[in-house]
Amino acid sequence: MLDSRTSSAEQTLGYSAIMDETAPRPGRSMFAWLVGASQLLGVASVVLTGVWMGHYRGGFAWDGSGREFNVHPLCMVLGLVFLQGDAILVYRVFRHEAKRNVKVLHGIIHLLALIISIVGIVAVFDFHRASKTPDMYTLHSWCGMATLLLFIIQWVMGLLFFLFPVASSWLRASYLPIHVFCGLVLLVMAIGSSLLGITEKLLFSIMPTYSQFAPEGVLANTLGILLVGFGVLLGYLITKEEFRRPPNPEEEALSVHFKTLTEGGSPTSP
Amino acid sequence: MLDSRTSSAEQTLGYSAIMDETAPRPGRSMFAWLVGASQLLGVASVVLTGVWMGHYRGGFAWDGSGREFNVHPLCMVLGLVFLQGDAILVYRVFRHEAKRNVKVLHGIIHLLALIISIVGIVAVFDFHRASKTPDMYTLHSWCGMATLLLFIIQWVMGLLFFLFPVASSWLRASYLPIHVFCGLVLLVMAIGSSLLGITEKLLFSIMPTYSQFAPEGVLANTLGILLVGFGVLLGYLITKEEFRRPPNPEEEALSVHFKTLTEGGSPTSP
Repeated sequence: MLDSRTSSAEQTLGYSAIMDETAPRPGRSMFAWLVGASQLLGVASVVLTGVWMGHYRGGFAWDGSGREFNVHPLCMVLGLVFLQGDAILVYRVFRHEAKRNVKVLHGIIHLLALIISIVGIVAVFDFHRASKTPDMYTLHSWCGMATLLLFIIQWVMGLLFFLFPVASSWLRASYLPIHVFCGLVLLVMAIGSSLLGITEKLLFSIMPTYSQFAPEGVLANTLGILLVGFGVLLGYLITKEEFRRPPNPEEEALSVHFKTLTEGGSPTSP
Repeated sequence: MLDSRTSSAEQTLGYSAIMDETAPRPGRSMFAWLVGASQLLGVASVVLTGVWMGHYRGGFAWDGSGREFNVHPLCMVLGLVFLQGDAILVYRVFRHEAKRNVKVLHGIIHLLALIISIVGIVAVFDFHRASKTPDMYTLHSWCGMATLLLFIIQWVMGLLFFLFPVASSWLRASYLPIHVFCGLVLLVMAIGSSLLGITEKLLFSIMPTYSQFAPEGVLANTLGILLVGFGVLLGYLITKEEFRRPPNPEEEALSVHFKTLTEGGSPTSP
């Protein structure tokens, strides 16, 4: 556990480089396997969504047709599930890197997730407008919209609290556990909304053949199971104490780029 | 915090009865409000499911008709969501009671949840058989069946590991965090499966009027949102450190009814 306790100051100066290579790392290989499996599930989910929309639903376009709708599932699975999940995961994968860098990476991946999700939302509303389909009447739309709106609030709050020194240390420390909890809730809500979207799309498109185990139905169901698997693995990796960022008082005290040294409290590591 | 650290031996002997009434209880009122809100959401979900099936879908019967199907959602929301959630919650609500009693209560509520869920599953398969509807082709059925099977495994494992002294202390201590994590995953999966079931039922039954915001659709969507709220509150109550059962080495050492004193390890409190 020695390497995990190494201070950021030492890391910055490279003192711990050799120790990192030689010290025993309990649970490290398990962690690597789980992260690898989660990435496999995440990428497979995005690919399967692409195959479903590309092969079975006629491909992609931006012309108000069903092919514009097809942009929606791909963007949401890529942005609000895969990228949102990985933005959270960087705190575990890079838990021995300088916190500032990880924080910036966390914010950038979330920004990417946000932009892609907004493109996905615009695609479906644009398709509804062109095809005169009513908006926001299904449970999928209610859950999905709630997820996106809360995701935007969470992102803006995260930016104000943790990337720009607007809030006091005490406020940051109080908000951190809420931010972390809401992040996991949002990931679960995004996955749940995706599953609702899959069910909706299948019943709108292939209701007569779905019950005969049409390949498209089986593929979309499999996509749903992969998304659940991604969520379960992410949930495990994020909540397991052993994989958390080790507390580092020295780093907290040195992190002048986020807060002034005159302030009292110090936010704990997420 | 004094009362929360009081040992089980003291509690058993009634030494802490007066202290419990007078000592300050930080976070206690917040906890009570959250538990109250969760119960309100849980009961409202069960009632709304009953109203949906009872009022809009023709009521309940056991005759192979759609009224037998109606037993399914009611049983699943009551058993696999509400009771499963509350079975987990007893560890927080009764965190100052003797662990053995809480454990037994946890097992009994889960057993009740299991029986009710099995009735719910039998109802839908029986309805499918009578109406010649194919089984297990939707994402709802895949997720729901996976949830129920994993719930049964989780219940049997819990029984063997924690209620009967089959496993060693070391094994129990290793399994406990997995049991706790899987419990929360199963609750989330049960809620997710319910949402899928709501979407499926609405698209099978009222697709033409759903898009015109038919009262039945709005009611069922609201049910979905209540279930999400129940899940979020339960998730918060279960994972928040402050609400956890305080560690009690004396109780662990005294809990001879669960393990022999000759064994080495000691499972930590869930």
